[in-house]
Amino acid sequence: MDDQTLDVSNFGPVPGSVTTGPIEGSAKIWSSPEGRGDMRVPFREIALHPSAGEPPVRVYDTSGPYTDPAAAIDVETGLPSVRGDWLARRGFARVESTRGVKPEDNGFASGEYLVSPCPAAHRVLRGATGQLVTQYEFARAGIITDEMIYVAHRENLGRAAMIEGAEARRADGEDFGANIPAFITPDFVRAEIAAGRAIIPANINHPELEPMIIGRNFLVKINANIGNSAVTSSAADEVEKMVWAIRWGADTVMDLSTGRNIHNIRDWILRNAPVPIGTVPLYQALEKVGGVAEKLSWEVYRDTLIEQAEQGVDYFTIHAGVRLRHVPLTAHRTTGIVSRGGSIMAAWCLAHHRESFLYEHFEEICDIMRAYDISFSLGDGLRPGSIADANDAAQFAELETLGELTKIAWAKGCQVMIEGPGHVPMHKIKVNMEKQLRECGEAPFYTLGPLTTDIAPGYDHITSGIGAAMIGWYGCAMLCYVTPKEHLGLPDRSDVKTGVITYRIAAHAADLAKGHPAAQIRDDAISRARFEFRWEDQFNLGLDPDTARRFHDATLPKEAHKTAHFCSMCGPKFCSMKISHDIRAEAERQDGLARMSESFAEQGGKLYVPAD
Amino acid sequence: MDDQTLDVSNFGPVPGSVTTGPIEGSAKIWSSPEGRGDMRVPFREIALHPSAGEPPVRVYDTSGPYTDPAAAIDVETGLPSVRGDWLARRGFARVESTRGVKPEDNGFASGEYLVSPCPAAHRVLRGATGQLVTQYEFARAGIITDEMIYVAHRENLGRAAMIEGAEARRADGEDFGANIPAFITPDFVRAEIAAGRAIIPANINHPELEPMIIGRNFLVKINANIGNSAVTSSAADEVEKMVWAIRWGADTVMDLSTGRNIHNIRDWILRNAPVPIGTVPLYQALEKVGGVAEKLSWEVYRDTLIEQAEQGVDYFTIHAGVRLRHVPLTAHRTTGIVSRGGSIMAAWCLAHHRESFLYEHFEEICDIMRAYDISFSLGDGLRPGSIADANDAAQFAELETLGELTKIAWAKGCQVMIEGPGHVPMHKIKVNMEKQLRECGEAPFYTLGPLTTDIAPGYDHITSGIGAAMIGWYGCAMLCYVTPKEHLGLPDRSDVKTGVITYRIAAHAADLAKGHPAAQIRDDAISRARFEFRWEDQFNLGLDPDTARRFHDATLPKEAHKTAHFCSMCGPKFCSMKISHDIRAEAERQDGLARMSESFAEQGGKLYVPAD
Repeated sequence: MDDQTLDVSNFGPVPGSVTTGPIEGSAKIWSSPEGRGDMRVPFREIALHPSAGEPPVRVYDTSGPYTDPAAAIDVETGLPSVRGDWLARRGFARVESTRGVKPEDNGFASGEYLVSPCPAAHRVLRGATGQLVTQYEFARAGIITDEMIYVAHRENLGRAAMIEGAEARRADGEDFGANIPAFITPDFVRAEIAAGRAIIPANINHPELEPMIIGRNFLVKINANIGNSAVTSSAADEVEKMVWAIRWGADTVMDLSTGRNIHNIRDWILRNAPVPIGTVPLYQALEKVGGVAEKLSWEVYRDTLIEQAEQGVDYFTIHAGVRLRHVPLTAHRTTGIVSRGGSIMAAWCLAHHRESFLYEHFEEICDIMRAYDISFSLGDGLRPGSIADANDAAQFAELETLGELTKIAWAKGCQVMIEGPGHVPMHKIKVNMEKQLRECGEAPFYTLGPLTTDIAPGYDHITSGIGAAMIGWYGCAMLCYVTPKEHLGLPDRSDVKTGVITYRIAAHAADLAKGHPAAQIRDDAISRARFEFRWEDQFNLGLDPDTARRFHDATLPKEAHKTAHFCSMCGPKFCSMKISHDIRAEAERQDGLARMSESFAEQGGKLYVPAD
Repeated sequence: MDDQTLDVSNFGPVPGSVTTGPIEGSAKIWSSPEGRGDMRVPFREIALHPSAGEPPVRVYDTSGPYTDPAAAIDVETGLPSVRGDWLARRGFARVESTRGVKPEDNGFASGEYLVSPCPAAHRVLRGATGQLVTQYEFARAGIITDEMIYVAHRENLGRAAMIEGAEARRADGEDFGANIPAFITPDFVRAEIAAGRAIIPANINHPELEPMIIGRNFLVKINANIGNSAVTSSAADEVEKMVWAIRWGADTVMDLSTGRNIHNIRDWILRNAPVPIGTVPLYQALEKVGGVAEKLSWEVYRDTLIEQAEQGVDYFTIHAGVRLRHVPLTAHRTTGIVSRGGSIMAAWCLAHHRESFLYEHFEEICDIMRAYDISFSLGDGLRPGSIADANDAAQFAELETLGELTKIAWAKGCQVMIEGPGHVPMHKIKVNMEKQLRECGEAPFYTLGPLTTDIAPGYDHITSGIGAAMIGWYGCAMLCYVTPKEHLGLPDRSDVKTGVITYRIAAHAADLAKGHPAAQIRDDAISRARFEFRWEDQFNLGLDPDTARRFHDATLPKEAHKTAHFCSMCGPKFCSMKISHDIRAEAERQDGLARMSESFAEQGGKLYVPAD
């Protein structure tokens, strides 16, 4: 392959740098759960114009220390430890003789082709047999961990008590059998994890992590995929991809790097990542056997799991549901197998005419992952790659196998989520969610889109954003983003941002529809800002203040226009909101709209046929 | 207002020109219904690479003669007449003493500020009392019009008979009580129009129109809004906005121009428009009274209706559902009244403390519109402008009034569709559709989005595309586009295209989900192209070949890459589709995947628990 064509280095604004500084109009703040002054949970506050007479709007913040102006960011030393003390108290054994780094881990890259290792300090821990290690094990034992307290406070947006109207919001939503409480307690978090309905992906070797939770009774989360380019100019460029994705709202990041240097690149990413990092270990295992699927073996795979476990990867996609018997079910498909991991495992099974080594060694995989509290993301290797293949026998047969594996992983003490499609028309999305909940005992679902049509290459963030919003509403816990470049090429900086924002829209639309008690606060704040012509507030309350401001300024750039009672869409004479204010003023002069409203309401049935 | 800031002239690629030439990879074709060699219904055919061994894929084409390389486009002479002979046969009286143009119609613009009138020839027709004029009247009389034959052929994509698998596709979909036939006959079209479930917006003074149908048992349609800029450099620039929107798939275009010159600009647009043109006559009426709502009168409004009727506008948004008694219901709203027309009428009602003159003169409005077969688009002046206001008393009270007016308009012989929201969270969308069908006797619904969250200014094509896809699935007949500039400013060329493509995605996703018999043909064709690495076919089959090609070429620009068995997303070693082909080859060598599949199927229940 022509390396040159894959050079998307210099991802950052300046080569070798990462993006820092607050989101426009926002300030980073921290809040501590009651009685836990040692715990600093990050949020972002958007201050409003004094004329609003409203307190700042607090929003969930995935961006880590990078948006803290006071933070000293140095990718060589990595982020400060968040969980170090918590982990220390659990008494995990420090691994003295670690697996370390082997030349094949970086594809035998050397000299100028070798990305230097990240110099940040890193101790390797491992849980022992019989010891409580995973969040699932603690939860089942009835123990509330620090991580559980942290995520409860985070999900509540730092509130100490139920917000006003929370119960009404819940009742107003439609959650399809989910059970979002009006206020999240640490014990609720524990109970959800114990039931397998939620996970906190948090490798004990990733102390830099700011814990977060994935489950359908919590805020819907999104994942962004990043990957190295074949030519890497600097480690900071790779870190920047992650920093850029979390800046705009990615809750987790998957590092799907292939090629050389992936061990060292992963080190740089992990030591600088405040969010859970996921990987597909199969990709690196395949690199180690020269890219030839049939040369894969359990031994190489197992060694790769341990390599990445020691580095601190928080969740692994494991395609253990692709069984030999499933491969023939793809024979008549329009687009065959479209998951990379799925196709690799299918090729292996067929070449050896043997059952998948991932399936056969699943219990050993569980034992390894439990020892570091790495969460399973059971891969959907047979997900449909086209509308034609949606919900077919291959897809559902694998899903049934994933259900079987979920129960084994739980029995082994592991946290589990389940990956899902793919390409699915709107009317076939709900059955995916329902079947997943049924087969997999309500383990969190984590889907790619789904794309609701195949006919818009270049716009698949939108075709999939539609499906993502819907499945998030139906109960999907995490949505894997799709960028505009899907099906066409590697995303650039702008594509990553567009993908993340699109999926933040989908996740938030889902939270609103489910009746999440706090979701509408932000919608209401921006709507009031709109109605009161507080343009700066409208920009800053949006998911992307920079783009909103730029779009507005394209036609009305002057500072005076930031308080104008119109915009260029309708102009001053036709601004309905301006006229609305005039109407209210006129009504107030006449009689008071509110009183008129009450008076009409009294006449009720005489005027209107009530909606049923 | 500062005119300079609103200068979005030079909308076209070259000032004073319109975009012509075929969509990349496509050819314009025409097909005639059986026995109607005189009728040329346009389509677009996408030829595939010879290796595909497949016939070209035919798609619906809204673009008019502009994409026909053989057409001589001259905006000064306008488009050729499509319906002239049909209309002549109906014997409409030619209006000898037309209303003509008055100075106030162009805002008293003169000299260099006056946009010159379009010189294209135009005769004004008017139907007489007692004569059959509207498509509704013909349909009720059991008469199939030329327009009905044309749209039936168009909806069938020119097929002479039912396509293979059509019944199965219908059965596979979920249409919520719609009734999409496997094959559209002219009599089915007639029956749908007679039942009020569909309309063919087609003013008898718009002979250039290529007829299309709007109804929930037909393909979902989309509308694009355009409007003049305050400073107009040339009439061609205004025509270009319409041409650009229909090039990418707008089924109808609304001219929402305000300010001066709107009469003459409308002339230029109509004489060059192959799609139905809609307007909001209230905007021009307001211009005529100096922009002061309370100065509006029935007389000015009536005169404006006739002015625009003679020009050939195909549908009018009439905000007759905003009644005096509804205004107080908006008192507690978060965002008041957000429809321009709605706010103007509310202001008028309150200023005069009188019932709306549109409501009071509704029957006279019907009489005028019937005489030219202008379709009603009953405006939702009280649509919600925020999630907070969705489905509130004001919105639903107006919808009930629109239902009442629909029946009056039908009794008067008019075609009717109903406008809908707005801003609605996902879980409140379906009830909108259901209530609209119930209140308005199944008249076609025409919605703006709806936006499923308020928090993403700059991305409202996406927040609303989600809602549009869903309501289209539930039964909405036409979706009014939203551009990325919504809430922020006037859209430019790129925004219009993005809005149109986003809404084509929504409409197509809805068609797929409803089980439209022919919708999946294009998805399947592009999916096969993807699986077979026919990159050019994949680009050309997409909604936007130019963008897809550009995205692909950003990382793999060479010609050789257009047949490469990988792209830059995963690279050659990790391309799942390439591996899928290897798997099939290996399986064929071993035993044949298809046979293996059958053999597994025979074992059926032993291997899998069937999905229920």
